[in-house]
Amino acid sequence: MLKVNNFVRSDEFILLFNTIMLTLSDKALALPASPIRKLVPYAQQAKSRGIKVYHLNIGQPDIESPKEALEAVKNNTLELVAYPNSGGIESYRSGLAKYYQNIGIDVVEDEINITTGGSEALQIALTVTCNPDDEVIVMEPFYTNYNAFALLSDVKFVPITTSIDNGFAIPSVEEFERLITPKTKGIIICNPCNPTGVLYTKDEIEKLGDIARKHNLFIYSDEVYREFCYTDEPHYSCMHIKGLEQNVILIDSVSKRYSLCGVRVGAIVSKNKEVMSAVMRYAQARLCSPAYGQIAAEGALSAPASYFKGVRDEYIKRRDYLVEALQKMPGVLCPTPMGAFYAAVRLPIDDSEKFAQWLLEEFSYEGKTVMVAPMGGFYATPGLGKDEVRIAYVLKIEDLKEALKCLEEALKVYPGRKN
Amino acid sequence: MLKVNNFVRSDEFILLFNTIMLTLSDKALALPASPIRKLVPYAQQAKSRGIKVYHLNIGQPDIESPKEALEAVKNNTLELVAYPNSGGIESYRSGLAKYYQNIGIDVVEDEINITTGGSEALQIALTVTCNPDDEVIVMEPFYTNYNAFALLSDVKFVPITTSIDNGFAIPSVEEFERLITPKTKGIIICNPCNPTGVLYTKDEIEKLGDIARKHNLFIYSDEVYREFCYTDEPHYSCMHIKGLEQNVILIDSVSKRYSLCGVRVGAIVSKNKEVMSAVMRYAQARLCSPAYGQIAAEGALSAPASYFKGVRDEYIKRRDYLVEALQKMPGVLCPTPMGAFYAAVRLPIDDSEKFAQWLLEEFSYEGKTVMVAPMGGFYATPGLGKDEVRIAYVLKIEDLKEALKCLEEALKVYPGRKN
Repeated sequence: MLKVNNFVRSDEFILLFNTIMLTLSDKALALPASPIRKLVPYAQQAKSRGIKVYHLNIGQPDIESPKEALEAVKNNTLELVAYPNSGGIESYRSGLAKYYQNIGIDVVEDEINITTGGSEALQIALTVTCNPDDEVIVMEPFYTNYNAFALLSDVKFVPITTSIDNGFAIPSVEEFERLITPKTKGIIICNPCNPTGVLYTKDEIEKLGDIARKHNLFIYSDEVYREFCYTDEPHYSCMHIKGLEQNVILIDSVSKRYSLCGVRVGAIVSKNKEVMSAVMRYAQARLCSPAYGQIAAEGALSAPASYFKGVRDEYIKRRDYLVEALQKMPGVLCPTPMGAFYAAVRLPIDDSEKFAQWLLEEFSYEGKTVMVAPMGGFYATPGLGKDEVRIAYVLKIEDLKEALKCLEEALKVYPGRKN
Repeated sequence: MLKVNNFVRSDEFILLFNTIMLTLSDKALALPASPIRKLVPYAQQAKSRGIKVYHLNIGQPDIESPKEALEAVKNNTLELVAYPNSGGIESYRSGLAKYYQNIGIDVVEDEINITTGGSEALQIALTVTCNPDDEVIVMEPFYTNYNAFALLSDVKFVPITTSIDNGFAIPSVEEFERLITPKTKGIIICNPCNPTGVLYTKDEIEKLGDIARKHNLFIYSDEVYREFCYTDEPHYSCMHIKGLEQNVILIDSVSKRYSLCGVRVGAIVSKNKEVMSAVMRYAQARLCSPAYGQIAAEGALSAPASYFKGVRDEYIKRRDYLVEALQKMPGVLCPTPMGAFYAAVRLPIDDSEKFAQWLLEEFSYEGKTVMVAPMGGFYATPGLGKDEVRIAYVLKIEDLKEALKCLEEALKVYPGRKN
């Protein structure tokens, strides 16, 4: 930083600073390019060379949105698209409250604020609870965009590492407590987890709740993959923990639940009145969430149970195919994901960034290649995840099959192969 | 702030802090309730007593959106609503580039990033250019939500006061320069201006440009009311200033332009590549702007010139009626607004906050009353605007007439009347 003497004359001051004023902020310079999206130019180049690229790199499902959502938008009768309430369209909020009540989450309209996607929900939650340099504990690997929300909200993420070797098992209470300082404001949990596909059990969630209760921490519970659970147990939400009502802030979204990524509708849900009051004041500042998206989301609430059953069956089929195919490949480790639609995979390679780029730049098999997300960007600790990739099983079986064939062949010839 | 001794044992530390940890952030506590929206509960109570409330308090036009926008959404054929590009839907971006080119703003797709409303556009622009405590000069009165964006972006607003007595004329260059410090990062201008209705001339904009050029400042140019100009001169944008291409960041929105407030689609436009690169990285972190909203906005681009002409004629009629009616009321001052759809009005009253609340709580005329926005919240300097209200002439003439009759009668009997 440029230090200046207080006694310098003020016009010299200005002259001095003029040369540096039209610069970006430190935050702008620190904002990372999305590690998932930064390979996109290489994919475009591959496509322009006529190569078919299978996208396993991004959580953009190919599943259709419920007809009820699409029809609600097509049949809307708005003649002017006015501002909805800052907290959300009333009928959607009350429909959403019923959705939560049906899954045992006891909330009413005022405990729900409709946001512009889950992204805005987490950013608002961090902003209204954390002061600059407050700390939030987050299990790594975690959804890479969390990094940007932390940066934008001035929050310091304190990572607690989980490992592919034990299926990304949740660390012990002692390991969490070792990281708690006077600056710790809360813990983020993503359940089911992007990028690991781990589904935390009731017991694990309750233990996390005990830590939050004991140390008076918020739990930011990202449950946007709630409907994608592949065990026989129902999803256990942090909102289900008895006596923790003031601590839990639920981050939700319709993006994945109903294959409505583009509508940008999420929600912050909490029984903490002070939190919700601050959330509402934040919400008023940016006026409202998108009207058409809320109409789609409200329509989606009428999707029949068969919609979710069909989607779940399809993902289980894809997951089973994926895991079986990967486990057959020598040197590949893939714990079976029990939720969401991601698999974290260890490959016998030197560097997953290099590998992902090489797949697009130099490799093809029968005119096809595959795009994967290198996991380095999903860890806060530098150097971790270098031999891991995230695979989103968002393509139908035929495409998945082709994509995995490409991966298999690629691993045979990749120059940076290990073992 | 609680000061602690570094040598206290760490578990005592934790015990000490436990009691204060589940608190909100300083920002959350400082976030103002919207001064426009905080009277809403009183309006609801009035309505529940059977009183008809005319809303002149909020910039929610009753004008229909262009059919082209509404039809585009109704006829969309999406089967799943995927993420659009973080920078915006390509066809919309290129259509929008043409819109700008048609009004003499020479930009291409890459110089446009589609945002979630003008609100997000300004917040992103401030975040990527300003460090904590950097200063931005803003003419007061200004759009009250700017305060929240400044708070959320850690920017310090430095107000330069304009006065209703000279029609909110732009201050002299010297007055601006007196406020420039080494911390000054830019100037915000809203043209046409919410809340004053002032339309700045080419000459005034060029002078502002000279200041920015000389002192190397950004200009954040909020032009969301561009199509609402009531002189014969075309709107002169900061983007038109020659040689200032690196300094100007245009904040735009379709909310007012096409009566599409609820779609949440805006834009950041700049020829400064570094700014746009940072904007894109910010945009990627929150993934994208709403798909349906962008479809509506793209449809609106095909609205015929007659749409704007009809809208403009309607607003001129309303404005003329409003100004004439107000000027007939004793003790009322209302400079004729030349743009947007707001009038800043001085009333012969003690306190516009009290007056606005009294209108809803205690007053009615033939079963009707009127809601206005007290101007205090539009000034950064405490105490200013106490006898001013903002009136949005967003209602059709018949309603406007009734509303102004209420105001006239109210001023006769308001206990805090002056003169």
